[in-house]
Amino acid sequence: MVLVDRANYGRLKPVMRAIAGHPGLELQTVCTGTMLLERFGEAVSIVEKDGFRVDGRIYVELEGSVPTTMAKSVGFAVIEFATEFHRLKPDIVLLIGDRYEALAAAIAAAYMNLCLCHIQGGEVSGSIDESARHAITKFAHYHFPATERSAKYLVRMGEDPATVFPVGCPCGDAILRRAPRLPARDFGRGSGARIDARKPYFLVIFHPVTTRFGDERGQVEEILAALHGLDHPTLWLWPNIDAGSDHISKALRVYRERHPGNRWLHMMKNLPPEHFQAALYHARCAIGNSSSFIRDSTFMGTPVVLVGDRQVGRETAANLVEAPCAADAIRAAIERQCAHGRYRPSTLYGDGTASAAIARRLAALPLYRQKRLHFIHER
Amino acid sequence: MVLVDRANYGRLKPVMRAIAGHPGLELQTVCTGTMLLERFGEAVSIVEKDGFRVDGRIYVELEGSVPTTMAKSVGFAVIEFATEFHRLKPDIVLLIGDRYEALAAAIAAAYMNLCLCHIQGGEVSGSIDESARHAITKFAHYHFPATERSAKYLVRMGEDPATVFPVGCPCGDAILRRAPRLPARDFGRGSGARIDARKPYFLVIFHPVTTRFGDERGQVEEILAALHGLDHPTLWLWPNIDAGSDHISKALRVYRERHPGNRWLHMMKNLPPEHFQAALYHARCAIGNSSSFIRDSTFMGTPVVLVGDRQVGRETAANLVEAPCAADAIRAAIERQCAHGRYRPSTLYGDGTASAAIARRLAALPLYRQKRLHFIHER
Amino acid sequence: MVLVDRANYGRLKPVMRAIAGHPGLELQTVCTGTMLLERFGEAVSIVEKDGFRVDGRIYVELEGSVPTTMAKSVGFAVIEFATEFHRLKPDIVLLIGDRYEALAAAIAAAYMNLCLCHIQGGEVSGSIDESARHAITKFAHYHFPATERSAKYLVRMGEDPATVFPVGCPCGDAILRRAPRLPARDFGRGSGARIDARKPYFLVIFHPVTTRFGDERGQVEEILAALHGLDHPTLWLWPNIDAGSDHISKALRVYRERHPGNRWLHMMKNLPPEHFQAALYHARCAIGNSSSFIRDSTFMGTPVVLVGDRQVGRETAANLVEAPCAADAIRAAIERQCAHGRYRPSTLYGDGTASAAIARRLAALPLYRQKRLHFIHER
Amino acid sequence: MVLVDRANYGRLKPVMRAIAGHPGLELQTVCTGTMLLERFGEAVSIVEKDGFRVDGRIYVELEGSVPTTMAKSVGFAVIEFATEFHRLKPDIVLLIGDRYEALAAAIAAAYMNLCLCHIQGGEVSGSIDESARHAITKFAHYHFPATERSAKYLVRMGEDPATVFPVGCPCGDAILRRAPRLPARDFGRGSGARIDARKPYFLVIFHPVTTRFGDERGQVEEILAALHGLDHPTLWLWPNIDAGSDHISKALRVYRERHPGNRWLHMMKNLPPEHFQAALYHARCAIGNSSSFIRDSTFMGTPVVLVGDRQVGRETAANLVEAPCAADAIRAAIERQCAHGRYRPSTLYGDGTASAAIARRLAALPLYRQKRLHFIHER
Repeated sequence: MVLVDRANYGRLKPVMRAIAGHPGLELQTVCTGTMLLERFGEAVSIVEKDGFRVDGRIYVELEGSVPTTMAKSVGFAVIEFATEFHRLKPDIVLLIGDRYEALAAAIAAAYMNLCLCHIQGGEVSGSIDESARHAITKFAHYHFPATERSAKYLVRMGEDPATVFPVGCPCGDAILRRAPRLPARDFGRGSGARIDARKPYFLVIFHPVTTRFGDERGQVEEILAALHGLDHPTLWLWPNIDAGSDHISKALRVYRERHPGNRWLHMMKNLPPEHFQAALYHARCAIGNSSSFIRDSTFMGTPVVLVGDRQVGRETAANLVEAPCAADAIRAAIERQCAHGRYRPSTLYGDGTASAAIARRLAALPLYRQKRLHFIHER
Repeated sequence: MVLVDRANYGRLKPVMRAIAGHPGLELQTVCTGTMLLERFGEAVSIVEKDGFRVDGRIYVELEGSVPTTMAKSVGFAVIEFATEFHRLKPDIVLLIGDRYEALAAAIAAAYMNLCLCHIQGGEVSGSIDESARHAITKFAHYHFPATERSAKYLVRMGEDPATVFPVGCPCGDAILRRAPRLPARDFGRGSGARIDARKPYFLVIFHPVTTRFGDERGQVEEILAALHGLDHPTLWLWPNIDAGSDHISKALRVYRERHPGNRWLHMMKNLPPEHFQAALYHARCAIGNSSSFIRDSTFMGTPVVLVGDRQVGRETAANLVEAPCAADAIRAAIERQCAHGRYRPSTLYGDGTASAAIARRLAALPLYRQKRLHFIHER
Repeated sequence: MVLVDRANYGRLKPVMRAIAGHPGLELQTVCTGTMLLERFGEAVSIVEKDGFRVDGRIYVELEGSVPTTMAKSVGFAVIEFATEFHRLKPDIVLLIGDRYEALAAAIAAAYMNLCLCHIQGGEVSGSIDESARHAITKFAHYHFPATERSAKYLVRMGEDPATVFPVGCPCGDAILRRAPRLPARDFGRGSGARIDARKPYFLVIFHPVTTRFGDERGQVEEILAALHGLDHPTLWLWPNIDAGSDHISKALRVYRERHPGNRWLHMMKNLPPEHFQAALYHARCAIGNSSSFIRDSTFMGTPVVLVGDRQVGRETAANLVEAPCAADAIRAAIERQCAHGRYRPSTLYGDGTASAAIARRLAALPLYRQKRLHFIHER
Repeated sequence: MVLVDRANYGRLKPVMRAIAGHPGLELQTVCTGTMLLERFGEAVSIVEKDGFRVDGRIYVELEGSVPTTMAKSVGFAVIEFATEFHRLKPDIVLLIGDRYEALAAAIAAAYMNLCLCHIQGGEVSGSIDESARHAITKFAHYHFPATERSAKYLVRMGEDPATVFPVGCPCGDAILRRAPRLPARDFGRGSGARIDARKPYFLVIFHPVTTRFGDERGQVEEILAALHGLDHPTLWLWPNIDAGSDHISKALRVYRERHPGNRWLHMMKNLPPEHFQAALYHARCAIGNSSSFIRDSTFMGTPVVLVGDRQVGRETAANLVEAPCAADAIRAAIERQCAHGRYRPSTLYGDGTASAAIARRLAALPLYRQKRLHFIHER
């Protein structure tokens, strides 16, 4: 009974394995969003190659990448999730994070009286994801936060402490099991300069900050200006589909047209979870605002330069340096991280046992419908 | 910049007057939900008769009254609100309460980066409305809670105290200005037995509890059984459109077919705000689970029998007696309230100045986009 | 692989039996529109009582009953049919008539490359149904028209003659098998005056003419004026859900409020197919604009007064008299029909073998995708 | 009162000028589909640069490019057009061609009782467009076919001859006014090999044939194989957004990755109308299945190789040679056309006066609602 959205597949894969392997649980998987889109690498095929059955495919992205289409995609997604939930009749809807597809699934589940479980609630960040995450919390019946602070925040927000299980982030489960032996892999099907995965490289992911719609192009130009000077082999992954992503893509295309012979910039759409983890693990420095840089990287100790305010408020480990979205500051931060080199891994986001803990809890939870702000039970 | 949903028009009307009368504000009104439907009395025409321009009409109710159609109506409403907000380009979206239409408007506004203000946040109740209310809070930038407790709960949930303004409930503004002189009015266009508004009567409203979908018919039969024995003139207003309302309507129709000559039951679809307030004010006892019985009645002191758990958790004044949804218990509670008679009005839900306070705040608020859980600013 | 819309179930039921009974065919049934709605009598439960499995339920009616919501319901229906067809993967989509739900199903099927078969194409009528019927024809791969004229028209419109099978209307199949022995049945669950099904009565059905949206109320008042004077027991069935139906309902309710003690008007929502056929068979005169009065009545010889222009252009048998929508003209026509009495049945719409012929064809048809205006194959 | 879909802007631009310049008409423009999408070149900005106001922007493309999403996009488009028509309240909806966006607009207009006028009806082609075109005809009140044969076919399909005006195709209006002086222009912002617009080049456009979904990749590989051998400078424009277009794009990308240094293939998203006409005019040979190759090219005499069956049934002039979708056949046809060189222009699709004729008619048409198959008026 797991719901998956694109980049999160890497995080949920160990949970799916744990559920599929649990005698008291049956796994149903619904894929949606960019997972289904060829231009984002069609991650759904990876799910199937990994041996999972995909029980539902929900197309929800209304093209346009402006705030209005983003809002409409949320609405459309609610409609489509309602259809699938009506058909699949799950006992529990399990979802992760703060994307609008996850919010839509939560709303559909809530109005259909389904038991909703939420992974990664209670965190703090920027963008509209911040609000969506807490709204999902308010619909969720059970919570699997990734850190102690998140668990504490959930209870302070009025969730019943008996429904909050701080299990750590499942993204660490796979990493900790494999990390020391993660081999570097060739970067295959991308475009642009060829770069060698066995030599030092940077990894860049930069998503739009929807609450700053319109600023994206200038922001990417700052990052490109910083990297242009460094001329260091770089793997850049295309952004997600949020409002503003077209502006980011455009800035990248313009740069490539102006510098057709550049030898540092390799672009890719997507990587399977293990490849991505390997790419992050072996990167000399990760640059951008992907939540994986906050989270997955802590299990690895990869140096990170966090750019801009999309993730402001998240809990971070020592391997992360923040930089405002200005070329000079970004460049200085990169140089500082390169000088420092790899950090010691942290247990901030868990110890690698989250998936098993989630499956165990799911099998034992009483399903109920009526939530109420827990404050009223206090003295 | 006010958004209205059906029964709430009574509550928002003084706010709309205050906004329209404020030199620094311009009022836009979007009507949706049952306000537009003939079979619910088409309340939108009352809005226009009251002199307000209706800038948008959003049809969102997908027929069916089952949880799946209710979920789909939410999705459809998000799409339609996005269209209207794109067209009207409001600076502020102001909404009230916890209905799914309000949730849909909140989501559309949030993903379109509009400043969202919410009236009646922080309260506690049953039904899915409980979750929707708090989810709206998580998207809202400013809050106008109706009570001190609600304000306190909003801050505890992580809202910035500087954005929480406990102004009281605007529903009291009109009541306190008019209540002592509210004349009893004839109950006109309904069906069933004729009853005299100048003699003692009961007022009943019973909405479905969506999280208990399927139980409605039996619940209504209990209420009817209680009232059947009392045989006391009763004005019963049809329920809202939530999943389950068809079951309620059916139970009522079956009763009427079986007791065609009964002389106590008068059914009506809808009353204009002032008529409704008069009807509630003059009722000998109000019976059911409408939130107006919790809230508006406190300004009046009308005796109330609250039936079932739809409102469990709300703050109540002395005029309210709770009863489980069983004929005997309901009947006993009604008799107790009739024996007691009218209560003294309470200031639990405000002192009649909410509308003016809201308009004054709206005109002065800095618009901003990025919210963050306030906990992270704490020491 | 049959698709059903509300009132048409009576017509398709023998086809469904024939398909279910054919060794080379498997029947899937999708119900939609008013079939699912309590306030229209929830005909889907009759389908299930009759022993058919309902494979899909598609809620499509956006409340409002204005042209805009009708258009949006079409759009919504296309989306929902696409979902169901994707799930059920039928080889053939079989549908009947000209309702907007049928148009929506045709469009979804066409863009999904499914083989589309259409019953009752090539007819001529009024309302938007006229255009929708021919548009469905243009998407349909095979045609089962009800009359020779319809078959001829389909070919003239450019359909390949090899794909046009004039089999008669399946509505006659059941009637001809049962008609002489159709017993009169009590009219049960309606409201208003009680009338005796064994004594002479009128049957009225009046649907809105969507292309004359806004005129409905006056039209119904003319019919009511005609009948008010006659004071003859009358069974009136509520209209369908098209734009304007709320106006019709309102006119009826107003009449009933003004004449609460009238002894002629009995209102009902819906009748199961056999009950409806019996009611039509035994009626002294049928009055209104239902297509069943044009079609089903020809197999029975029931006298019909066709009111207004909703059906202008249809092929009619001798049992039908037309009247403009004016009280005097309607009354005169009714009196003329009562004076005449029952007519001889006609074979205009077939000889009772349509269902078997359709099933036989369906099992033998080659599925293909690409249609082309047949004119280009001519010399 | 003009509706526009992407590639057709070139054809409608002279009509828009004629309407805007007519004293009895007011022009409203709604843009939709790929016109609004950055990844298709955002043609809407060209409309605005040309001095037209864009009154509505309708995002309708649900991402996925599979038949199910295509069907859902139709449904979504109907909903959104209903909203815009409700807001803009046009007297006449004017649209062109056979795309699904046009079908959606036609359905919304029809169910909202708006007068619908259709350009380019009565033509014959392949793909689902064939059915959509004739379905639009069945909703349209007036018709502006491009050829005498099309006009004749419309009447044979049952349209009233008094509503059919064979005015020629407006795409010729601009071409005939400018063609002899159309300068060759640089091909700017594309990717791949640089090619010189002043030297001989091929022009390729290949759209998916939706009724053959799944065959696209092999088809494109055949064309690429034919051109690979010729190694002749070629301008290739990306396909439209129909189901299957992702497969075409993929085949092109794979070719480019395998032949990164090729010097013949230049890819572009989009060209403004005049640039496109110049590109077609000066091409040595046009290859593919774009309807502009059938139509616009006849006014110019550009040699065309029509590949596959997407356009089977269209009226063609002497400048066109057909080839099945096989590398050898395509190559042979190209060589034959190159050997022949430019043809004499044809007047098959009009004489350059269509736009003025359309505007003149629109200003004089009586608006009406109720259509009926014209056959019934015949003796």
